[in-house]
Amino acid sequence: MKINRVGHIGIAVEDLDSVVNIFEDVFGIELEAKHSAPDQPVEVALLKTEGTTLELVTPTDEESGLAKFLKKRGNSIHHISFEVEDIDAALSHLKDKGVELIDKEPRVGAEGKRIAFIHPKSCAGILIELKEKT
Amino acid sequence: MKINRVGHIGIAVEDLDSVVNIFEDVFGIELEAKHSAPDQPVEVALLKTEGTTLELVTPTDEESGLAKFLKKRGNSIHHISFEVEDIDAALSHLKDKGVELIDKEPRVGAEGKRIAFIHPKSCAGILIELKEKT
Repeated sequence: MKINRVGHIGIAVEDLDSVVNIFEDVFGIELEAKHSAPDQPVEVALLKTEGTTLELVTPTDEESGLAKFLKKRGNSIHHISFEVEDIDAALSHLKDKGVELIDKEPRVGAEGKRIAFIHPKSCAGILIELKEKT
Repeated sequence: MKINRVGHIGIAVEDLDSVVNIFEDVFGIELEAKHSAPDQPVEVALLKTEGTTLELVTPTDEESGLAKFLKKRGNSIHHISFEVEDIDAALSHLKDKGVELIDKEPRVGAEGKRIAFIHPKSCAGILIELKEKT
């Protein structure tokens, strides 16, 4: 199985609007949408680029893992999201490979699409998300 | 001016081959090329994905900034690279915007293409590279 389409790059930021403004003003990159997530304490801004999307994400709960990550590192590139056609099949493939998952079953992400995170320990310390296309 | 085509995602890693192996084995992503850089103490592996490229980069000089970044953070997503048609025009645009540059003039990167890094302080702490297409 190939999991090889980068859907977005997740960037953790402390203040969503100020970072959106920089990308708009300096790079001419357009804001596509802003969302909150149904089951995660985050707000998200999607910036439309050619090739992939930049997902700016900020925590709304100071005790969340994302808030702790930000306190430690400041604004940082946080994860790479691969877009998949069938997230159940992709997770089954990863389980067969012995990959450790943060989300053993998909959950609903910021755009109402099904997502799952792979544990960084199974990917050399890099945080990878899978996101179902439809 | 629009600077909005993500050419690659730069990922700092301690051991190039082991991370290449994970991306090949787990995700079915193919190694496109390996390079050293003419004027930087790094080795690079390019992984071909749909939408963008993953650039794994490892330092060959323990005193380099990249080596220090890795010692502090471990393997981590390091930068986003925007592909531009004309890097001189892009840098001129950024200077006009008051953006602080690490490379005020382009230098030659790992694939023999002209690159320049923007200072993270001008981009909310995120490290951005420009890379000329041709």
